[in-house]
Formats: sequence, C-alpha cells, structure tokens
Amino acid sequence: MNNEQIVLAKRPDGVPGDEVFRYEEVETVPPGDGELLIESVYISVDPYMRGRMNDAKSYAEPFRIDEPLAGHVVGKVAESNADGFEDGDVVTGALPWKRFNTVPSSTVDKVPSTEVPLYLYLSTLGMPGHTAYGGLLNIGKPQEGETVVVSAASGAVGSVVGQIAKIKGARVVGIAGGPEKVKHLTDNLGFDEGVDYKAEDYAERLAEAVPDGIDVYFENVGGSVSDEVFNHLNRFARIPVCGAISAYNSKEDNGPRVQTKLIKSQALMQGFLVGQFKDDAKEASEQLAKWIEEGKIKSEVSIEEGFDKLPKAFRNLFTGDNFGKQIVKVSDALD
Amino acid sequence: MNNEQIVLAKRPDGVPGDEVFRYEEVETVPPGDGELLIESVYISVDPYMRGRMNDAKSYAEPFRIDEPLAGHVVGKVAESNADGFEDGDVVTGALPWKRFNTVPSSTVDKVPSTEVPLYLYLSTLGMPGHTAYGGLLNIGKPQEGETVVVSAASGAVGSVVGQIAKIKGARVVGIAGGPEKVKHLTDNLGFDEGVDYKAEDYAERLAEAVPDGIDVYFENVGGSVSDEVFNHLNRFARIPVCGAISAYNSKEDNGPRVQTKLIKSQALMQGFLVGQFKDDAKEASEQLAKWIEEGKIKSEVSIEEGFDKLPKAFRNLFTGDNFGKQIVKVSDALD
Repeated sequence: MNNEQIVLAKRPDGVPGDEVFRYEEVETVPPGDGELLIESVYISVDPYMRGRMNDAKSYAEPFRIDEPLAGHVVGKVAESNADGFEDGDVVTGALPWKRFNTVPSSTVDKVPSTEVPLYLYLSTLGMPGHTAYGGLLNIGKPQEGETVVVSAASGAVGSVVGQIAKIKGARVVGIAGGPEKVKHLTDNLGFDEGVDYKAEDYAERLAEAVPDGIDVYFENVGGSVSDEVFNHLNRFARIPVCGAISAYNSKEDNGPRVQTKLIKSQALMQGFLVGQFKDDAKEASEQLAKWIEEGKIKSEVSIEEGFDKLPKAFRNLFTGDNFGKQIVKVSDALD
Repeated sequence: MNNEQIVLAKRPDGVPGDEVFRYEEVETVPPGDGELLIESVYISVDPYMRGRMNDAKSYAEPFRIDEPLAGHVVGKVAESNADGFEDGDVVTGALPWKRFNTVPSSTVDKVPSTEVPLYLYLSTLGMPGHTAYGGLLNIGKPQEGETVVVSAASGAVGSVVGQIAKIKGARVVGIAGGPEKVKHLTDNLGFDEGVDYKAEDYAERLAEAVPDGIDVYFENVGGSVSDEVFNHLNRFARIPVCGAISAYNSKEDNGPRVQTKLIKSQALMQGFLVGQFKDDAKEASEQLAKWIEEGKIKSEVSIEEGFDKLPKAFRNLFTGDNFGKQIVKVSDALD
C-alpha cells in the first residue's frame, strides 16, 4: 500500500513557506499486536502547531526536523490488530501527517457518533470546542446580561465561544477580519454585534459596540487588535488567554503593557491550555453535542481537499484565508 | 491658629516638578457638631497618588486643580466636637494635605495601639501592609517551597510581601535598585536572594536566583524589570498586579506583550485594589500586628521632616531616593 507523509524540512522564520515542508513517499507499516492501521480522512490544522515548529521549550514538544508534523485526525481503521476495534471503525486522535498511520490502539478514540459530520470531531466536538467550553466557562464565567467580547470570532474556537456566551445570556460582540466574516457573526451565529478589525474605524466601532464596557474578553489574537479591547475592561473583568495568533510568526511582539489596565479594572487574565479541563471533558462533549443537536451551536468549516494541501491549509490560519475551522480532507474512505 | 495646605497647581507631565505643587496659608475651621479638628503629624506619600494627578477616570477620583492633595495621615485630635473622641486621641484616615483638617469624625479611625511607632499605621499596619497581605494571600497564594518574586522589594508593600511569603515557607527573591537596598533584603528582612535591577547583569542574576522558576510574582513595577520576570514563570504561576510604577509618569508604556507567556505557563495575572479585601481587613490588621510583635515583619521607613517636604517626598517614590516606606513628619505633637 502506498503511503505518504509531510515532514518538517526546516524551522520557519515568520509565516511558514513551502521550504518548511517536504512531501515524502514512505512504506506502510503493518499493525503489530495491539496496533491499528488507520487511514487519515480529515486532518486538522491548528494555530498552536506553529509554536511546535520552533525549537523552543513550551507546553508541547517541538516537532523534529525530518520527521512528520502531527495534529488531530479523523480516520478509518484500515486494519485492526487490537481488541475492541474492527476494520472500518471511525477513530480520532493526534497522529502524524501520514496517509496511513500504524499506532497502538490507545492512541485513538472511537468517535461516539457517526450521525454528525465527522469533521465536527476536529472542530466543535474536538479540541477547539473543548477549548472554547473550558476557557469560557471556567475562567471567563459569563453572567446573564454581561458583555462578552471574543477575537478571531469566526474561527474554530471563537465561533463556539460566542455561541456558548449567547446560550448563557450574555451580550456577545465578535471581532473578525473583513465584512464577510463580520456579517456571518450576526446573521448566522446569533452574535449581537460584529466588529471588523481591518476597518479604519475599528477603535471607534469597538467602543460603540460595548457601551457598557467588557466583562469577559476571550483572547485569541493578541497584538494591536487586543490592545484596543483592554481600554474597555469593566471592574473584575475576566480574560481567558487562549491564543495570540498575531505573535506566532513574529520574533518581537511589543505593544502597550497591560499592568496598569489590569489594576484599574481589577481584572483577571489567565493563560490556559485545554488539557487543564480534562476532568470535565466528558461533560463538555455531551453538552456540546446536545447544543449542536438543538441547533444552538453552528459550525463553519473550510475544507481543502488533498494530502498535498496541508501546508497551504496551515498557512490559511495566519493569512485569514480560511472561514471557520480549517480542515484538510485527504481521503474519500468515509464518504 | 495658623494653617497651611499644599494644593495641585497644575497637572504634571512626567515626574511632578515643583510647579505642580503650591503652598498656601489658610484659615483653620473650628469643628462643628460631630466634627474633629485634627493636627496632621505623619503624612504618607504613595505611588497611587500619581494616578490621581491625571485628569483621567480611574478607581480614585482625580485630584482637583487648586484644591489640596490628599493621602493617609496619622494625626492628633486638637479639638473634639464629636462623641467618642477626646482631645489628644491619635487617629488615622485619608485627609487633605493640610496641617489642620476639620472633618466629620466618621472620616477617621482611632489607632488601635500607641505602643508601636505611629508611622506603622501608614506602612505595615496601614494601607501598604493591607495591600501586601490581601494581594499575596488571596491572589498569589504562596505554598511552602514555592518561589516568590517581588519587585520594589524594599518598598512599603514589597518588603511586607516578601516577609509574609517567608512566613508561609516560600523561597523569596526580591528585586530592588542598588546594592544597598538589595543587601537590606537579605541581611535585614530575611529574603533568600536579592537582585539589583540597575546592575548590567540583571537578567543573568535573576535567572540564577530562580533556578526552579517562579510560582508567584508580586508585580509592583512593570516595565523592562518585569519583562525579564515573565521569562521564568512556572506552570500555574500567579501574578498579583499591585502596581506598575515604571509606567506612572510615562504616556506610553510599551514592551513585550504578555499573552504568549501567560498561555505557555497557564499563569493567572490579576490586577487588584486593596479595597476588594475589605471584608478581611480586621483579620489582616490583627495578623500583621502579631507578626510585627513577634519580630517576623520588620519595617523600614524614610522620614522627611517638615510640611514643605511633601512634594520632595512624593518625588522620592519615583526616583528611588527613599528607603522603605516614605513618610513626612509635619508636627511634633505626638513626640
């Protein structure tokens, strides 16, 4: 069976160009005892992966040069040599960027339901959804009538954050790039207001959109977009810090320091990783699935087709060329 | 009776120069029903007052032009016209910068004990002590064996923070300016290490002083001194943000943004004001008094003498020319 992989050819400087990735044909490894051969079907690209491309200590191990990149995958069991799994089972887990992976069965989980679009297990029902749920409810703690602002609001995490905040009775303002994404927030996702950070009057429009100030700011982007948000924090505001995508491709990320603003507002700012909420993961999965079923949470997805589109799809995250969760479909095996 | 006051002549640009203050002779007002005439004895100057000199909305009202500045005072009741107070009582409260204030008796509290140096009610037993106690124990939550770093460590708040952290069993590293202050931290206050932020090798010395990283950073200064601290945060570090004195006299306070560092460390950063811990103020007062009595908390004080020294004393806070809590003694009435 032909196999293929995409490895990290060199560490990027700025937005990863083509030279960072190398396509390779490799052998497929037959599954040993307790192992599964899994065909990748949907592969997720996520902003946090940019950090793993640097050779710097962080919460996740750096990717190694000449070894495959890796991320969340929905796949189909092509050959099971493990108890509890059968050929044709649909599974999800963090796997190398290979068309066929041979891994211990403990590496993956069966998807709980194949009635929903399977790529949801890479977005609302997967890591991004859990990130939104855990960060917003544990750190942001939106209360009825409060104002919640979320940046990268049409993205995989931001879109779920805003919709959960609406379910909790908050007034929700989303920040996104360009009129199309902003319109999507209010027309399709039920946000109260959308603000375009690319517009010349961004600062004024943001101020108008939060007449009562900001009680929760779910931080996804950092940079000058967020600097404006910090001017409107209410007393005891909460700021779950999920991401800072504006900084991931730059060596220096300078701007106004937040200290005086946090003091004035007595605000709480907390960095988090989805893993710290793992004790509540089952509850989160069930709740998110229920909200999707009830039509309370909608998911937008951008699908690139073809294994060779992985580098382009990954770059879309930083250029804003995707709309909603960016996924790559690499096989028709589950159509 | 001659009276005098110091008013805000104009709003400062940068460190307040002499032109910001104006000395005036005024009439003493006799106390009406329920009022006290109080002679100021010790007047406190504190960094937060710089914020009130700007014409900007913040947690405290801006000082008004041509009206007296104000701050915490220990004084002696010169004439009581209120139940529960007698001539000669020692009181403390937030009062205008006047030699004699005539105020409702509810404006001040009697000092609980005159057995300790009375200026302690402006430092460890006053607002700075309560700030240290509330911020460190409610937000910082130092655990035995953890590493606590505090900036402006020889100052009114920082010196108490470090000593409480030692009582709680933490390893304590203080950051201060100049070899004399740094030596004071280890020799007199019992800190484990002192680091001089004015030294050329500040970054290296800080790194050496925190071999196990930083679990609690009590933020008093902001700016480039703190930027270095953020490179050493441990997982789930806590950062009570008490002050950012480096920013108080500048219009722009730019530097590395903290978002990516908070995510990597899953750290919590929280601005606070001492008032939010007011429900625990009685407990804090009793505990601080007990620690002072037991010799576990020592207080350093810089006393300027003379009512006309108030502007100079206030400027000392920003030049670092004070050592420990800066106080102005304006009367011998309690000697």
